[in-house]
Amino acid sequence: MSKGKIYLIPTTLGDSPINDVLPPKTIDILSQLQHFAVENIRTTRRYIKKVIPEKDINQITFHLLNKHTSISEIRHILQSVEQGIDLGIISEAGNPCIADPGSLLTREAHRNNLQIIPLTGPSSILLALISSGMNGQNFAFNGYLPISPQERIKKLRQLEKKSQSEQQPQIFMETPYRNKQMIESIIKTCHPETLLCIATNLTLSNEFIKTAPISYWKKHIPEIHKQPCIFIIGA
Amino acid sequence: MSKGKIYLIPTTLGDSPINDVLPPKTIDILSQLQHFAVENIRTTRRYIKKVIPEKDINQITFHLLNKHTSISEIRHILQSVEQGIDLGIISEAGNPCIADPGSLLTREAHRNNLQIIPLTGPSSILLALISSGMNGQNFAFNGYLPISPQERIKKLRQLEKKSQSEQQPQIFMETPYRNKQMIESIIKTCHPETLLCIATNLTLSNEFIKTAPISYWKKHIPEIHKQPCIFIIGA
Repeated sequence: MSKGKIYLIPTTLGDSPINDVLPPKTIDILSQLQHFAVENIRTTRRYIKKVIPEKDINQITFHLLNKHTSISEIRHILQSVEQGIDLGIISEAGNPCIADPGSLLTREAHRNNLQIIPLTGPSSILLALISSGMNGQNFAFNGYLPISPQERIKKLRQLEKKSQSEQQPQIFMETPYRNKQMIESIIKTCHPETLLCIATNLTLSNEFIKTAPISYWKKHIPEIHKQPCIFIIGA
Repeated sequence: MSKGKIYLIPTTLGDSPINDVLPPKTIDILSQLQHFAVENIRTTRRYIKKVIPEKDINQITFHLLNKHTSISEIRHILQSVEQGIDLGIISEAGNPCIADPGSLLTREAHRNNLQIIPLTGPSSILLALISSGMNGQNFAFNGYLPISPQERIKKLRQLEKKSQSEQQPQIFMETPYRNKQMIESIIKTCHPETLLCIATNLTLSNEFIKTAPISYWKKHIPEIHKQPCIFIIGA
């Protein structure tokens, strides 16, 4: 009996048309799968309905895969793959296994010698970086920064220093309703000549991507409250 | 008169079918553009012929954008965008502006307040990372490592240390015909328990992605000579 495969299924970044960001193969594989490990079952149901309206959602088996999922639950999910069932991993936005718990499962899958197949779709981190005009030879992604203002400022200082000393743009995210505080912290903390890229609503009709020195942003704070956003600090 | 836009056009990673990795919108924009800044004119012509066989290549204006392109040549290319002409940037494989000279142009474009629109397509770096099972909250890309064996080993030691102390997987590439030497250097340099992901021929029919400790790779050196490959060192 042959083992199942694990497909990494990207989602749209917000409500962009699927033809803008998903290749036919990604949609095709998604339409064939009946078993998924997902970060959020409700939003994944909605996503599958959007991409493949004719698919019968009630025939699908969903496993919850979030930060509370234990290693024994993950092993249970992988047992079905060992037994020949193909599994899709889907996270909240963009590619799974980045800034989400998907990699707990793929790490365990490698230990069990299971095949992992990544599918192409939009990545806000990558789209922001390539558009930023910053060094694409050497960059780092830092996920979410600390929530406490003091800790966040300390982290921003570290990132700014690193971006200079290593010529390494520093990418990070924030929960959308805290974007305003994040921009204020950055403006307050970083040197006027340091470059900041703000990339908002990527792949959507109101996409906004701009790289400028902190001195510019001080006078032109963008209105990005509650909008998904990627920040990049560069030297 | 409205200004032109700059589109970042991804290419396939090798000879994969276009429907596997390109969304319809990416193909649609590519078919509309008549001006391109490209890393290699010959391979870009071939790529456009593959994606849109009916497009008249002789009507297209190509600007060469490589490491020898001067800032004044870049400004010349951007002048046409200022005058209302849309421009596509295309590099050798995957997304432009990563591990290639595209970001010289986008950086200058930001200075001139020109709009940059990234399109979705395959990224070997991103696909390797999400499949690796390594930490997707915090990672770094390091481009190509030094060619000299001593310098390369020194850099590998640094990367291994960083992957441990910062829990930050370290991604890097090698020119395909030097893959064998690279694997030998990694195996010789890194600790037996350090994790290494080798991701080869991504999105192609002979795709291979495996994460295992160095001790495993010592006994199972894969045959990846001349095959495009991403390496990730993790703790």
